[in-house]
Amino acid sequence: MARTDIARRVYNHTWKLDPIVRSLLDTDFYKLLMLQMIWGMYPKVDATFSLINRTTSVRLADEIDEGELREQLDHARTLRFSKKEMIWLGGNNFYGRKQIFEPEFLAWLENFRLPEYELSRRDGQYELSFSGPWMYTTLWEIPALAIINELRSRAALKAFGPFALDVLYARAKAKMWAKTERLKQLPEIRISDFGTRRRHSFLWQRWCVEALKEGIGGAFTGTSNVLLAMDTDLEALGTNAHELPMVLAALANSEAELRQAPYKVLQDWQRYYGGNLLIVLPDAFGTAAFLRDAPDWVADWTGFRPDSAPPVEGGERIISWWRDKGRDPRQKLLIFSDGLDVDTIIETYRHFEGKVRMSFGWGTNLTNDFEDCAPISTDRLNAISLVCKVTDANGRPAVKLSDNPAKATGDTKEIARYLRIFGEEARVRQLVKV
Amino acid sequence: MARTDIARRVYNHTWKLDPIVRSLLDTDFYKLLMLQMIWGMYPKVDATFSLINRTTSVRLADEIDEGELREQLDHARTLRFSKKEMIWLGGNNFYGRKQIFEPEFLAWLENFRLPEYELSRRDGQYELSFSGPWMYTTLWEIPALAIINELRSRAALKAFGPFALDVLYARAKAKMWAKTERLKQLPEIRISDFGTRRRHSFLWQRWCVEALKEGIGGAFTGTSNVLLAMDTDLEALGTNAHELPMVLAALANSEAELRQAPYKVLQDWQRYYGGNLLIVLPDAFGTAAFLRDAPDWVADWTGFRPDSAPPVEGGERIISWWRDKGRDPRQKLLIFSDGLDVDTIIETYRHFEGKVRMSFGWGTNLTNDFEDCAPISTDRLNAISLVCKVTDANGRPAVKLSDNPAKATGDTKEIARYLRIFGEEARVRQLVKV
Repeated sequence: MARTDIARRVYNHTWKLDPIVRSLLDTDFYKLLMLQMIWGMYPKVDATFSLINRTTSVRLADEIDEGELREQLDHARTLRFSKKEMIWLGGNNFYGRKQIFEPEFLAWLENFRLPEYELSRRDGQYELSFSGPWMYTTLWEIPALAIINELRSRAALKAFGPFALDVLYARAKAKMWAKTERLKQLPEIRISDFGTRRRHSFLWQRWCVEALKEGIGGAFTGTSNVLLAMDTDLEALGTNAHELPMVLAALANSEAELRQAPYKVLQDWQRYYGGNLLIVLPDAFGTAAFLRDAPDWVADWTGFRPDSAPPVEGGERIISWWRDKGRDPRQKLLIFSDGLDVDTIIETYRHFEGKVRMSFGWGTNLTNDFEDCAPISTDRLNAISLVCKVTDANGRPAVKLSDNPAKATGDTKEIARYLRIFGEEARVRQLVKV
Repeated sequence: MARTDIARRVYNHTWKLDPIVRSLLDTDFYKLLMLQMIWGMYPKVDATFSLINRTTSVRLADEIDEGELREQLDHARTLRFSKKEMIWLGGNNFYGRKQIFEPEFLAWLENFRLPEYELSRRDGQYELSFSGPWMYTTLWEIPALAIINELRSRAALKAFGPFALDVLYARAKAKMWAKTERLKQLPEIRISDFGTRRRHSFLWQRWCVEALKEGIGGAFTGTSNVLLAMDTDLEALGTNAHELPMVLAALANSEAELRQAPYKVLQDWQRYYGGNLLIVLPDAFGTAAFLRDAPDWVADWTGFRPDSAPPVEGGERIISWWRDKGRDPRQKLLIFSDGLDVDTIIETYRHFEGKVRMSFGWGTNLTNDFEDCAPISTDRLNAISLVCKVTDANGRPAVKLSDNPAKATGDTKEIARYLRIFGEEARVRQLVKV
């Protein structure tokens, strides 16, 4: 007998939308950690997040249909945390700690929904932004990026027949598996998935996470994706992001307050979190400036996440700062997370082996590497450098300088003012591929 | 809602057998062409076919469960040609000819079933043979080989988890697709699938056939597998096999008759078939002997299928024979089919380009090449050199000499007698990998 599931077939062919984001947990764990702090300390602050496509050669508004984009964003706005998800957030251990989320915060989260968005087109790009209370707009970052990246993949694949799709994914799987085999040679390495925002698709991210779990075993420490962590019994990982110092800097009422903003963030953070969550993200306004002006207690934190300097150079600078502060780097942790792939991971690992504890947050090149996989030639499957950044706070422009001028965001005049205050020391321009 | 098809799931988990051969059409087309001739001219001849594993290092009886083997063989014996299959055999054009099968033959075929088998174990190998009227036993060759090869794959894969299986097939697909991309560089090439008997599995053969169809388009001329030809609207291809001269030689009552057997076969054949089906298989008792003693009319046939000599050497010998007979090789066809892979195909194609028409019957390395694909190290997925040969006819031993002494089959004393009669000219020992 023919064994077609007719109901399923009809459903697949007639449902109105194939949602990209199906759960509010389909986001990065650090967004929830930051959200609890924002909810607790900055409930009155407004913040606008805006889409920025740094790969300007890719005209997103030409590749992605506006109607489909609106449908996906609208669908994300219908989502609520389900009962199962709320119970898991409240009952699971994160970073070895019970009840990392306060009951009052969870009670508020239960009614959370994503706020409105503004979408328009300009010069072949989408202008997409989210305005309103920071504690609402912040959660748009990851689903907005995931939606646009997956819509772009889907658009590219519309020209592919079933066979070409089969070959594409077979090659991508073979390629990904070859990466796990190389990484397996370094059993002491520690790698986690940071690829939600840039993923080719949700299903592909899930496959890559399963590949790491199967391929490198205990060397795979977890995923930043909360939904995948819940569904596959992995650790949910992540600490904090640039939006914290960026907003606090924008809110500063004096030059002195602005200089202190990067450290104020850390003080806020440690009111909520401890242990392995005490990770400094030093590059919002340049790592050199951050280290130069940092109070001694910053050296007590567990580790740093250098996110825009070249990994060896950036890591060495932090290690030498720890030594200056009388700390033993071998007790400290460096989390690398900027544009990694197997080569850079292995090279960085070998360089720092024995000198410092390390962890690698592998993003775009984990979940969106389809180079040389398509049997039909296309550049529309190449990952792009798409971000969703806080652009103002309470009406004041927000700025990120970064260690790499190519990753700076914000108003030109404001960038110049920040550069005057923090200095330009040790910033190195690097090509931003992803 | 969860969308599991419960009925399907239950069926998949509880059916008693996953049959390897599900249709009597799941065989090589030439078996049916030969069968019509055997049925028409040799209905009283008995012939025994026997399994021969030339890869003696692989102990089949240790790798494959005897109960499972019997179940699969028994299941094949339950098969009949279905109405749809009979209508297709009668109504389809083969080699551009309508009604290649006579109505009387088809009427007989409608009631065909595979005869009994004998199975025992010896020294880690299976002794499997089929005795009885030639017109019944001949159809066991392909399903018997396909069953054993697929049972061996299944046994090897029992140790694989779902992820390892996923990676295995992803890599095999990527590998196969890379082959099609190399072959696509030669748009004038002509390739067909001859891989049924040696296939990893039925589903994998189907995928490889689809890959060739999609990947090299018109350069893919068809498949020897009748079921796949019917189901995928491809040409069913194939002409004749060694069993014809082997049986006729065994039946010969004198040395003179024995010498004439290879040509008697051709005379029989052309009573039934013409055009592109007039392909000489010259190597049963050595190609040099065949050409030396061949009557002039053999040069009128469309082409030759050199099947055991090295392709360039074997092809050149035939071309020079055509020239001696005053024929233009550019009007003639050579079909290569012995142990081909992309390298040998391309090398042979380049050598003969412009000198002769060519076609490549690609077998084992098309449908059973899993080298370097398994994420778990195993040699149990490597294809083996397994054949099912006619071993006696009407109680007399059958012999094949071949151009490669490593491919000779039959009783040692009989081989010696045949060598005295046909000579050993130009036989070259080559390693038989598959």
